[in-house]
Amino acid sequence: VSVAYGRETVAVLGLGLIGGSLARALRASGFSQRFIGYGYRERSLRKGQELGVIDEFSLDLDEVLARADIAVICAPTLVAADMLQDILGRLSSCDHAPVITDAASVKGNLLEVALSAGGGQMPANVVLGHPIAGSERSGVEASSAELFVNHRVILTPVEGNDAAAVALVRDMWRSTGAEVVDMAVADHDAVLAATSHLPHVLAYALVDALAQSDASADIFRFAAGGFRDFTRIASSDPVMWRDISIANREALLQSIDLFTQRLECLRAAVDARDSEQLLETFDRAKQARDQFAAQLAERNRSAT
Amino acid sequence: VSVAYGRETVAVLGLGLIGGSLARALRASGFSQRFIGYGYRERSLRKGQELGVIDEFSLDLDEVLARADIAVICAPTLVAADMLQDILGRLSSCDHAPVITDAASVKGNLLEVALSAGGGQMPANVVLGHPIAGSERSGVEASSAELFVNHRVILTPVEGNDAAAVALVRDMWRSTGAEVVDMAVADHDAVLAATSHLPHVLAYALVDALAQSDASADIFRFAAGGFRDFTRIASSDPVMWRDISIANREALLQSIDLFTQRLECLRAAVDARDSEQLLETFDRAKQARDQFAAQLAERNRSAT
Repeated sequence: VSVAYGRETVAVLGLGLIGGSLARALRASGFSQRFIGYGYRERSLRKGQELGVIDEFSLDLDEVLARADIAVICAPTLVAADMLQDILGRLSSCDHAPVITDAASVKGNLLEVALSAGGGQMPANVVLGHPIAGSERSGVEASSAELFVNHRVILTPVEGNDAAAVALVRDMWRSTGAEVVDMAVADHDAVLAATSHLPHVLAYALVDALAQSDASADIFRFAAGGFRDFTRIASSDPVMWRDISIANREALLQSIDLFTQRLECLRAAVDARDSEQLLETFDRAKQARDQFAAQLAERNRSAT
Repeated sequence: VSVAYGRETVAVLGLGLIGGSLARALRASGFSQRFIGYGYRERSLRKGQELGVIDEFSLDLDEVLARADIAVICAPTLVAADMLQDILGRLSSCDHAPVITDAASVKGNLLEVALSAGGGQMPANVVLGHPIAGSERSGVEASSAELFVNHRVILTPVEGNDAAAVALVRDMWRSTGAEVVDMAVADHDAVLAATSHLPHVLAYALVDALAQSDASADIFRFAAGGFRDFTRIASSDPVMWRDISIANREALLQSIDLFTQRLECLRAAVDARDSEQLLETFDRAKQARDQFAAQLAERNRSAT
């Protein structure tokens, strides 16, 4: 049974870069009128209100849920899972249930929480999603109404979801200027593991290996721009990446193993001075990377 | 015995981005007056002459060596080794010997060639070096007199080198605006393996692993700017990197193994959901990377 959902009041649960940018974008597009902040850090909420990102905030989750048409969990991955569990526990004894969605980097752990709260059934009003957008900066102070313009938002609707709830979340993200794409939860987590979580782990592992080596002073002294670009993501927030690594454990382990196999092949080719094998691999990789870069440039061109 | 070396005529052996930029820079600084090109690709030489990068070119190595005061091997790593061997074979029966130097990415393989040509002794006039500079573009058409400004050039003088020859090569690079630093050959190759050769192998391995996976279409479809930056170096010239991988085999294998150990530790921590271990490693890596980035920014600031 499809329900008519409201959209006037949006609760942002966890007010940082993503939550703040979403509120700004929805206000700018007119998709919603009223924005309530909720979170564990009152300082961020107060700041968000000062900046006009949210209209008000509350530290009382029940009150926030009672008033919201849409509640968007914008907390970090593991906090998001705890929050979802908390929310679904409260809502089970409630008349009013807003549409619940989220912006976390991993979907499998949230799906598990939702299914378990629903006794194996997906709650109709819980639509999981992930905007592929970010910034070097963080916090509500860095939020921008433009953050999602021309970026992808992946939604992972599942059996049991209310079609009207899915449509509402899709419309919400579209109104921010994002391109909304549907994927299966497992596919989302595998793709994100490969393109984002694995590269972060590799960058952290590389920098840590070099920092621990005897020659680390010379190494960092002579490293140049290429190394800086390659290791930029090792400057990302360690807590966030610890959480993502744990939340997306299975897909990340598979990605690491896939990578390790290729690296072992390349190592063997270097060891054997196997000129042909090295050239073949480097050539194939260059072609794939050039093709990807051209695709991405095309996407950015056609978007602007 | 120290000899007085001339500097008027420079032979550029292998005329691409590096050789062309060196000739332009030395002409601009007035360090040398006459530039002769030599190489296997007549097209590049002809182009270099048209552009005024070199004054003339010759396909006769004996003639070039007879007229040059300084001969700079600017060919790719493995070609450079063959060229050095060829040159040292010719010079052994010659009265006139120019100072020979090079710009290749690996020094150990060239040192071996030089020592073996000298019967276990380093030829006094062979001073190995490596400018840490490059560009996304290649070829003599992309050469620039400014390429080396504020970049490092590593020289690896060894016992047996003539002090005057080392001084001449140092002065030559300084006149291009570069900062010249001395290192031991083994240290150079280890540092370059860690900061440049290993990252390239990792980027190639990552892109190739993903391109080979079943989900490769989705992976490249959803990869974004962070992935593009992380994999940029996988678009580098496969032939050049095959040669570097083979020329710097031992140091590269050691770097790969050092990295693999750290990655295995991180994999085990993910597998065990070892939150503490993950956070500790990511934290340590972020600190090292932030410190490196600050150092590099400081270096660039004080250089401009």
